[in-house]
Amino acid sequence: AAAEPGAGAVSKVLIVIAMQAEMLPLVHRFQLLEVPTGESIFPKGAPWARYCGNYKGLHIDLVWPGKDPALGVDSVGTLSAALVTHASIQFLKPDLIINAGTASGFKAKGAGVGDVFLKSDVVFHDRRIPIPVLGLYGNGARKTFHLLNELAPPLFQVGKLSTGDSRDMSPHDVLEILSNGATLKDMEGAAVAHVADMFSTPAIFVKAVTEIVDGEKPRAEEFLQNLTAATKALDQAVAEVVNFVCGKCLSDL
Amino acid sequence: AAAEPGAGAVSKVLIVIAMQAEMLPLVHRFQLLEVPTGESIFPKGAPWARYCGNYKGLHIDLVWPGKDPALGVDSVGTLSAALVTHASIQFLKPDLIINAGTASGFKAKGAGVGDVFLKSDVVFHDRRIPIPVLGLYGNGARKTFHLLNELAPPLFQVGKLSTGDSRDMSPHDVLEILSNGATLKDMEGAAVAHVADMFSTPAIFVKAVTEIVDGEKPRAEEFLQNLTAATKALDQAVAEVVNFVCGKCLSDL
Repeated sequence: AAAEPGAGAVSKVLIVIAMQAEMLPLVHRFQLLEVPTGESIFPKGAPWARYCGNYKGLHIDLVWPGKDPALGVDSVGTLSAALVTHASIQFLKPDLIINAGTASGFKAKGAGVGDVFLKSDVVFHDRRIPIPVLGLYGNGARKTFHLLNELAPPLFQVGKLSTGDSRDMSPHDVLEILSNGATLKDMEGAAVAHVADMFSTPAIFVKAVTEIVDGEKPRAEEFLQNLTAATKALDQAVAEVVNFVCGKCLSDL
Repeated sequence: AAAEPGAGAVSKVLIVIAMQAEMLPLVHRFQLLEVPTGESIFPKGAPWARYCGNYKGLHIDLVWPGKDPALGVDSVGTLSAALVTHASIQFLKPDLIINAGTASGFKAKGAGVGDVFLKSDVVFHDRRIPIPVLGLYGNGARKTFHLLNELAPPLFQVGKLSTGDSRDMSPHDVLEILSNGATLKDMEGAAVAHVADMFSTPAIFVKAVTEIVDGEKPRAEEFLQNLTAATKALDQAVAEVVNFVCGKCLSDL
């Protein structure tokens, strides 16, 4: 049953994406327009970019932490993701956040290249504080907004997401991830969840697997094929989620 | 030569501190008053606290990321420090940031318990991204605002600060710190520097050593004595810095 506008239907969705390559297909798909610097809601100096538009009655804002001003690379990782999520929540007051991106997967937990996961749990694996209670704060384990019987397997898998600021995994990271039971590993999810939780904004996490980290390494040409496949799967998955949300109340999701 | 008010003298200082135990002595020393929740510049939901007051013609704001709402422990680490620094810069427009706190020191690099360091360089040690240029972004190495011939040894030491979100050190962390040549290790500095740099706000880093991480571990009673000594040294050192800044222009510092 579609909700009436004004009767609690989700009207504003905020999509948070860390990398330009992940973000551009969605900008095209939803025909979003970049907000010019002069009209930005973001403070001068921040490289964060925002694209917005309307899609089937839903207002979509897509934000991206942008390129590091000194180095010209995507501002990946927890710090930039947390900052842009915070500023976007304050100015845009979204009803729902979708953090979308690519991630590494663990074959032993059932992940395969190109699979898309909706995460029901997020956690950090590189904030080890061996002091009572502060250890829990460091782990930052959170249940995410619970979605979507209709978006179950085979289209979407469900599993836990573990976040850290390194692209590689140290033996300590591996131990933490084995201990927290994650299926995927990314560099932003738990930070977005922390900020969303602080401001009581429901957030869901859509992550597509680009590589398997506990199996054989792909050859260089396979890696590029994997990246293309994962980005395409991510684009389609986010579209599915947005279509599913359209016209519904949070309580229907 | 004291600067005339309005002629470019530093008039607003923002002190960023992660832990309540580090922050309270300075609140008392400068007779700062806590800003009530109802008058907060910070968004509803954020546990961040602000204390402010005037001291020798200087407006001082001291901000602290507060207690985690669910767990009741200090919100230590890069994410909370970055968020509260960002929000404070936007609302308070400080002329100068002082990030003060305790840190762990490396005896091999000349650090001793109770020493106070003014950091001229900050860097991260737990953001390993083994991809060209992104590696530099992860390291996040920055020169900080350069201070203060008058605040040289023996009162203050100078050295590099390395930041990470774990209190312990994995072998990978040790390798990174050996490679980046840091004298001290903390959990916030490079994150505060990242945000200050983004908004072109000069920032200095005052860190007092609570423990040596490459020597013999102190016994439990020594650790408490060390903490008391380091917190006291930090309080005195921040007071020295603030007194030194009073009435001066940035260009005089």
